[in-house]
Amino acid sequence: MARWQPDARGRLEAAAFELFRERGFEQTTVTDIATRAGLDKRTFYRLFGDKREALFGGSEQLEDLLVKAVTETDAAPFEAVVAAFRQVAEEIFADRLELVRVRQTIIESSPELQERELRKMGSLAAAVVAALCAKGLDQTAATLAAESGVTVFRVAYTRWVEPGNRDSLTDLIAEVTSELQAITSPARR
Amino acid sequence: MARWQPDARGRLEAAAFELFRERGFEQTTVTDIATRAGLDKRTFYRLFGDKREALFGGSEQLEDLLVKAVTETDAAPFEAVVAAFRQVAEEIFADRLELVRVRQTIIESSPELQERELRKMGSLAAAVVAALCAKGLDQTAATLAAESGVTVFRVAYTRWVEPGNRDSLTDLIAEVTSELQAITSPARR
Repeated sequence: MARWQPDARGRLEAAAFELFRERGFEQTTVTDIATRAGLDKRTFYRLFGDKREALFGGSEQLEDLLVKAVTETDAAPFEAVVAAFRQVAEEIFADRLELVRVRQTIIESSPELQERELRKMGSLAAAVVAALCAKGLDQTAATLAAESGVTVFRVAYTRWVEPGNRDSLTDLIAEVTSELQAITSPARR
Repeated sequence: MARWQPDARGRLEAAAFELFRERGFEQTTVTDIATRAGLDKRTFYRLFGDKREALFGGSEQLEDLLVKAVTETDAAPFEAVVAAFRQVAEEIFADRLELVRVRQTIIESSPELQERELRKMGSLAAAVVAALCAKGLDQTAATLAAESGVTVFRVAYTRWVEPGNRDSLTDLIAEVTSELQAITSPARR
């Protein structure tokens, strides 16, 4: 068995990111990643399960922060979820636009990575639903608040990474929230 | 090369569904499916690409119907998407609750199938976004209307397949739409 390696996870993630950018996701093997990180293949599989997972290292941190923010606020459910995403935008994404853009290009290059990203967003939404239910909200209301919040975040995020965009992710989340409210509000006839 | 087979697609889909139900998704091979359908493995791969795809045979029909309904209405975007899903509920799902329940159990048994289902919903949403943009709506508004409609449909669908549910999918879509509108509307303080 491989010896315990300080920050093996971080080194493998960094190596995977570099290689996916240099050679492309399909052209990179797990052996390539492990070699670049100075580790072995078994260590990679023990920590990540599969090649795709190396690109989603931050998702647990994101989920924990979201759940904590949703749990601790007294705001109404949808407002709570949106505020939690704004906090995530400030604390995790704000200073990383260039990195996020490269990562997005990698994801868009592979249907497999797109599937994994959708699954991550699904599991994020499920964690938020659970947090809202724990506060006494029923399943339907919790799901609608969480999914609507995720939709707002995804749309804002897409606009944020677009070439030429100069708005902050936090501002875009606020703007897209208003647009969602306008577009779903019952038509006045 | 295999001879052309009348309704090879339908036979393979039916065989896959039966086998997934009897033995489980993981325990079924593409060879098992092809044998049960009286066809060969190459025909399966030519028509479906991979094993998962055999469970998503109806998704093109669903997408076509949705896009057509969204394109032909004069309703506001979100209302248009919800009305399109109600039409789909009537025309595709209404009489198939037992079948849909079995299918849902199969999907929930496999993370791989769940990923594929998320991708199908994503591609459905993308088709609706394109249909709305073709009518002159901007990308953000189109995405918010489509994604919110998909959220409503998914929540209504989940409640519809729950054991003991007696409401129609169409009614549940209407009910969940109102709940979404209530939960996302700006708080009156």
